[in-house]
Amino acid sequence: MPIVTFLPGYRKARVTQGATVLEAAQKAGLVMNVVCGGQGKCGKCIVRVESGETIFDREKFGVLFETAELDAGACLACQTRVFSDARIEVPARTLVQEQKILVDARPLDVPVSPSVRKYALTLAPPTLDDPSADLARLLEGVEHSGGPAATKIYAPLEMLRKIPVVLRHGRWRCTATVALVPGGYRLINVEEGETRARLYGAAVDLGTTTVVAYLWDLAGGRVLSTASNYNRQISCGEDILSRVNYAKKNGTGHLQELAAVSINTALTAAADAAGIDLEDIYEVTVAGNTVMTHLLLGIDPAYMIAEPYVPVVRRTFTTTAQRLGLAVAPTAGVFTFPAVSNFIGGDIVADILTSGMADQDEVSLLIDIGTNFEAVLGGRDWMLACAGAAGPALEGGEVLFGMRANPGAIERVRIDEATLEPAFETINRVPPVGICGSGLIDLLAGLIRACVIDRTGQIDTGIDHPRIRMGRHFPEYVVAWEEESGAGKDIVITGHDIRNLIMSKAAVLAACITLMDAAGIGHDDLANVFFSGAFGNYIEKENAVTIGLIPEVPLERVKNLGNGAITGANQALVSRERRKALDRIARTVTYIELNADPGFMDRYTQSCFLPHTDLALFPTVQRMLEECRLRKRWGQWQA
Amino acid sequence: MPIVTFLPGYRKARVTQGATVLEAAQKAGLVMNVVCGGQGKCGKCIVRVESGETIFDREKFGVLFETAELDAGACLACQTRVFSDARIEVPARTLVQEQKILVDARPLDVPVSPSVRKYALTLAPPTLDDPSADLARLLEGVEHSGGPAATKIYAPLEMLRKIPVVLRHGRWRCTATVALVPGGYRLINVEEGETRARLYGAAVDLGTTTVVAYLWDLAGGRVLSTASNYNRQISCGEDILSRVNYAKKNGTGHLQELAAVSINTALTAAADAAGIDLEDIYEVTVAGNTVMTHLLLGIDPAYMIAEPYVPVVRRTFTTTAQRLGLAVAPTAGVFTFPAVSNFIGGDIVADILTSGMADQDEVSLLIDIGTNFEAVLGGRDWMLACAGAAGPALEGGEVLFGMRANPGAIERVRIDEATLEPAFETINRVPPVGICGSGLIDLLAGLIRACVIDRTGQIDTGIDHPRIRMGRHFPEYVVAWEEESGAGKDIVITGHDIRNLIMSKAAVLAACITLMDAAGIGHDDLANVFFSGAFGNYIEKENAVTIGLIPEVPLERVKNLGNGAITGANQALVSRERRKALDRIARTVTYIELNADPGFMDRYTQSCFLPHTDLALFPTVQRMLEECRLRKRWGQWQA
Repeated sequence: MPIVTFLPGYRKARVTQGATVLEAAQKAGLVMNVVCGGQGKCGKCIVRVESGETIFDREKFGVLFETAELDAGACLACQTRVFSDARIEVPARTLVQEQKILVDARPLDVPVSPSVRKYALTLAPPTLDDPSADLARLLEGVEHSGGPAATKIYAPLEMLRKIPVVLRHGRWRCTATVALVPGGYRLINVEEGETRARLYGAAVDLGTTTVVAYLWDLAGGRVLSTASNYNRQISCGEDILSRVNYAKKNGTGHLQELAAVSINTALTAAADAAGIDLEDIYEVTVAGNTVMTHLLLGIDPAYMIAEPYVPVVRRTFTTTAQRLGLAVAPTAGVFTFPAVSNFIGGDIVADILTSGMADQDEVSLLIDIGTNFEAVLGGRDWMLACAGAAGPALEGGEVLFGMRANPGAIERVRIDEATLEPAFETINRVPPVGICGSGLIDLLAGLIRACVIDRTGQIDTGIDHPRIRMGRHFPEYVVAWEEESGAGKDIVITGHDIRNLIMSKAAVLAACITLMDAAGIGHDDLANVFFSGAFGNYIEKENAVTIGLIPEVPLERVKNLGNGAITGANQALVSRERRKALDRIARTVTYIELNADPGFMDRYTQSCFLPHTDLALFPTVQRMLEECRLRKRWGQWQA
Repeated sequence: MPIVTFLPGYRKARVTQGATVLEAAQKAGLVMNVVCGGQGKCGKCIVRVESGETIFDREKFGVLFETAELDAGACLACQTRVFSDARIEVPARTLVQEQKILVDARPLDVPVSPSVRKYALTLAPPTLDDPSADLARLLEGVEHSGGPAATKIYAPLEMLRKIPVVLRHGRWRCTATVALVPGGYRLINVEEGETRARLYGAAVDLGTTTVVAYLWDLAGGRVLSTASNYNRQISCGEDILSRVNYAKKNGTGHLQELAAVSINTALTAAADAAGIDLEDIYEVTVAGNTVMTHLLLGIDPAYMIAEPYVPVVRRTFTTTAQRLGLAVAPTAGVFTFPAVSNFIGGDIVADILTSGMADQDEVSLLIDIGTNFEAVLGGRDWMLACAGAAGPALEGGEVLFGMRANPGAIERVRIDEATLEPAFETINRVPPVGICGSGLIDLLAGLIRACVIDRTGQIDTGIDHPRIRMGRHFPEYVVAWEEESGAGKDIVITGHDIRNLIMSKAAVLAACITLMDAAGIGHDDLANVFFSGAFGNYIEKENAVTIGLIPEVPLERVKNLGNGAITGANQALVSRERRKALDRIARTVTYIELNADPGFMDRYTQSCFLPHTDLALFPTVQRMLEECRLRKRWGQWQA
């Protein structure tokens, strides 16, 4: 069997004849970018074969490369098969890198009343006159300490087996841990002595790409530490669809384990940082989209990706850590968020909880843009929601120099409207290697303000400027010259990129307008526009309105929730009352299937302009664009 | 390592040097009588060494044998160590044989309303307009079919994983199985198509010695079959104390498995007889004494055998079949009976339920005599209970020719008061090999009526009769001559046997009187005396009163419950209402610790007479004995 050696790290893997380089990389523990799930479409898993017998179809996949790259041996790891020992060079950008993960939750303004509590007990030892059973003695102790009635507490088998030893070894001083569960209470641990201070909980945002964990001291009601890392499922495909397809082919077992491992990795880091034992974590709340929740629970998500898109479970669910393979106290409850539909999952319900919109009389709009986008409109009495694929452009996919928010990504750009020269900032302030989502939106807004592109996104190649030129296939604007770039070449945005970006933002805007039309709501009626998620957190609000990503509202009404999913998970962890609100929220929201909405395609077409075909919907943007055009004519006239 | 071959079956086992013959027998799959748990005390595990190097201490254990037996190579399997290949002859009586197990339950007079129910559903397939989740669709179907509210039904993880496949594969026709559990309802299965007829349940009497199972068709409300077998834990010691000591030494794991295997064996036989699949059994109720219940649940019973005799759990408990290793539907609920104390277990609570005494205004006395005895006195508003060791005499232990109710046991004896000749019946009508409990009580009553023994149990050796003679150590009465016996020798009852029997019955009577004194109840106040268990079922009521095993009451008030434990288990299986009564019964009973009762020893001493030192408590018996004495004097005078 061939041995594949990966450079520069010299990691090795032994694989069968004909295995792909991607499979070898997975075996060697390298996590590569595979946006398309290994179908040879995204062109992100580029490697270079240095030696060895390999097969790669240059005819078929060559369009993704420059000729020089192909000549140097570049190929796609997912499409290259190995037939002898080989040495493969892996460029840094092919590997999943440490990304800016949004861990910040909003401060909690809820009283701390966790579902799990500890009771320190000093019990009277049994005597011939008082020979009541160990369990009754313990539970009556809990009741007398202000806990729930002894008859309402269920003690599972493992507790019955543990109780007699702990009570006697601890000389009848012990601490009981009791959790509120559906239908009553559950005794989830009993320890010797007084351990009330060691009562921790974890809130988890289980994203398709990243996992964020908050570790709480539930006794003291404060955050101890946070941690985040990649969702290890990335090795089985980058987006939801490829994960579901992986599950179809290989079963859900492996993806379930990877979900648990991903959470365990974050919890271990958080526990290490806080100096606590994982075994003292007695409750975990998990907010994730519907597919992530299903995969964590080990439920086949296959039926969700075809019409009529039906999840197996929508309501809140509670099970134990040991059943999911989470490395906390084995009997700890794991609470998963409810979903509205298969596309509006627990993460969005957490966003709604975080925004507080479900408690308000006014109408708010909530938008979460990630790998997909979701939008929710409404308030206390009604809510409408829809979801769709924006395409990967807003996250840097399908854009020539698009990239995730990794070091070297251009995250801020301003274009001088007179000189057309850009000023940019990169993540970690290193030479730029690409452009991430917030940078792309800035670019789009800057280019239209500078009249480099028109409202359809066409680059005006009539402009005589070194930065505006014809590229290999499309016209392009140079954002960074080779000499200032870390990519070894000019960093550009092409007409094709711009088209992809407009189609992406149009999907979001058309969805918002569809909800507003369905409810009979105008953009003046929106009391708040909430952005949730990393994307919303980093973009320039004004530019988002300028390009028509969201409906035009006064900018002070646009609010960032930060990571709404983790904030919601935190609330459900520390507050029984907030947790109770969840099923009600999930039931209040009506899901609108955009594909079934007859007006959606028209609204989409109308939204494929900057900002929209009907400028009456964007009066402020209209005025601003007119001013720009006038200024430009004036400048041209002056020249 | 030596190989031990057992004759006559030629079973073989390879053991380490110095292992006991008993260990070798266990390894070879032979189940020997080991009443004392292998301590060399009971003398039941007699074998004969035919060849091989073995060590057995004749000095120490010889008292248990006749000299001729010792000379022929007889020894105790538990005390004989093997140091070379050996051939060991095992007499049939040393092996546990098929015993008369009392499987008969009383007919049920309760309406059938089991805790587990099936709902056959025809669901509307999901559409884009009706995309509700699979789980909600299913549970709402249950609700609309007259089941509990969807929000009150918890679906465990394994059901969530199963539902989408079953619904689609069965084309949205399915059958849901829902069980009433503490705190709500639980979805325990979902199957394709209409399977309502396949809803079975099992009631189990888990005794220290035997396991009895009833298999029910819960849909039709009728018994399908019954089965019984030995409790496999017998290989770890015959009585409760030796089981607990085994658990102390080896952990509870092995005993837990043996309990499950014993139940599985009975259930398999019952299911085979009924022609059903074990997987279609969705609920199991188990009535057992407190130690058996703890061992089935895998809870260490160690603390129960020392002061203050505290069980770990007394109340009713529900867990799943898979957690206990029962071979029925994995998610089936297993319900265990509550206990009053460590000595008044679920079997006695089942007796009380069966007797109906807890629903009556009158006062009843309930007695269960088995390896130990338990007594309960009272009615609807109060009940007192106590328990004690009667010693094994009443079950045939510590009696020279005592034996279990196996084929060849003398189970009925009448002694002609004029000729002193006995007339007896044996089980299966084969030549007698020993005497079981009911036969021993008949003998005792017959011997006193015939004035062969006096009220202290002394055999009157002054009587000149061939059946009355001096034995090796004690005077004895010959019940069967060698030529009519299947034991190859005279079958006798000795003065020592009689002493043991009197001490045993005295313990029972003293316990009953202690309860009656505590409640201020005389024997005239007893509306019923219930006998539960095999022993009570087979004994002659009149003889039980004659020897003073129970207080004197009119014989029509003495009633047999049959196997009260299995009847109670049946009731809890088929009736939600009867099950609900159990915790109330367990709470109503007050346990009296006889060892802590200052008057008990006096009452015991007074009861060590036939029937009691105070004949005023037994007026009818007194008259009868006086008549016997007069008749005898008259006969002597005539002679």
